[in-house]
Amino acid sequence: MAHKTLEYRDGAVNLKGLLADDGGSGARPGVVLFPEATGVGDHVMERARRLAALGYVALAADPYGDGQQAKDLPHAIELMTAVRSDVNRWRARAKAALDALCAQSSVDRTKIAAIGYCFGGSTALELGRSGAPLSAVVSFHGGLEAPRPGDAKNIRAKVLVCHGASDPLIPLEHVAAFEAEMRKTTVDWQLCSYGGAVHSFTNPDADKLGNPAFAYNASADRRSWAQMLALFEEAFSSR
Amino acid sequence: MAHKTLEYRDGAVNLKGLLADDGGSGARPGVVLFPEATGVGDHVMERARRLAALGYVALAADPYGDGQQAKDLPHAIELMTAVRSDVNRWRARAKAALDALCAQSSVDRTKIAAIGYCFGGSTALELGRSGAPLSAVVSFHGGLEAPRPGDAKNIRAKVLVCHGASDPLIPLEHVAAFEAEMRKTTVDWQLCSYGGAVHSFTNPDADKLGNPAFAYNASADRRSWAQMLALFEEAFSSR
Repeated sequence: MAHKTLEYRDGAVNLKGLLADDGGSGARPGVVLFPEATGVGDHVMERARRLAALGYVALAADPYGDGQQAKDLPHAIELMTAVRSDVNRWRARAKAALDALCAQSSVDRTKIAAIGYCFGGSTALELGRSGAPLSAVVSFHGGLEAPRPGDAKNIRAKVLVCHGASDPLIPLEHVAAFEAEMRKTTVDWQLCSYGGAVHSFTNPDADKLGNPAFAYNASADRRSWAQMLALFEEAFSSR
Repeated sequence: MAHKTLEYRDGAVNLKGLLADDGGSGARPGVVLFPEATGVGDHVMERARRLAALGYVALAADPYGDGQQAKDLPHAIELMTAVRSDVNRWRARAKAALDALCAQSSVDRTKIAAIGYCFGGSTALELGRSGAPLSAVVSFHGGLEAPRPGDAKNIRAKVLVCHGASDPLIPLEHVAAFEAEMRKTTVDWQLCSYGGAVHSFTNPDADKLGNPAFAYNASADRRSWAQMLALFEEAFSSR
């Protein structure tokens, strides 16, 4: 199998993700990827393909329905807000992607990671907070505000937060509150701050926005990707 | 060559470090290791030997003279305070170790890292702030308070701070001030916080102190070591 559109549902909403699977023998670890607020586009699909090349079964999840992509930043914020303003809807949307990935016969359902970028990073964390049976959760430049902070205790995954140390979209107070919330739990978590990195540091197209709050940072991208892979190795070998 | 005591001087003070070098052809990258406040003991020597086994020339530095080791925690604090209370003396003591390492014919002087544990982590950072020609600086559970915060701009090394997220000896305000200070510079830096880790998380003997502020954390130890090696690979290939 190569890469194909995977249709799945969240209640009445029809979702269109990209399933990337380069084949291989037996059931393999799966990774669900939640995209930036712009929806399923080049960035998240490239990451899914890269994971498939490493032997994972990867699903780039559709947060909005029909694979909708935002026209511009205000539209992205509008789409994102519609999902995340209701935490139950938000979690259900994420869970639908997880279920769709787990339904693949090529996937080892005991070895699943959720990762995400920006809004998608928050989504991966939120899926973790819902108590979903995940081995690992990785957020890249994701918002760290939790609608129900106390739910951190429900996280069953090893958590890695990859954070741009100069990200103007993620207030220092949110970072501090996230860490404080995690400290109250027994969750295995790490937070890495990359000096000089701002929002969207993993996305080469971020520079095109012409907004200094968003910029690609090759070194933070490379380092955070390597740390994610190291966590996968830990998380998938220990179960 | 195997491992031997290396005598060197800081002014009138005779210092006794451990030089670990497993041999190899040509000049190789060097690592100076600054120990915990207890002085050159098993922990830092084991790390130096481990680095030598990987092909580095490693010097476990003596912070106090004659290889002195602290009898207990109050004694360690006394010895440490005597060195760090004068920033010029502190930097000179660190620089003496760097010079002793660089004087070895087996060392490539363009590829030097300084690392350290607790007080030694602060020392590695302070050596960096002095403007020393280092490729990498790594602090493990090191104090983050800087006597001259503005000197962060002098750092020429890539910096990695490996921090126990629950370390009661390193106040959150010091972490925040360190990050704020680094943000003002163009230094390439990272700070990784390991959930659940407290002080001395790399030292298996920490548990013997019977003090909950100090504890070994196998996962934080393994992760921080791997991140250090990844940084070395970056730092030593880019010069």
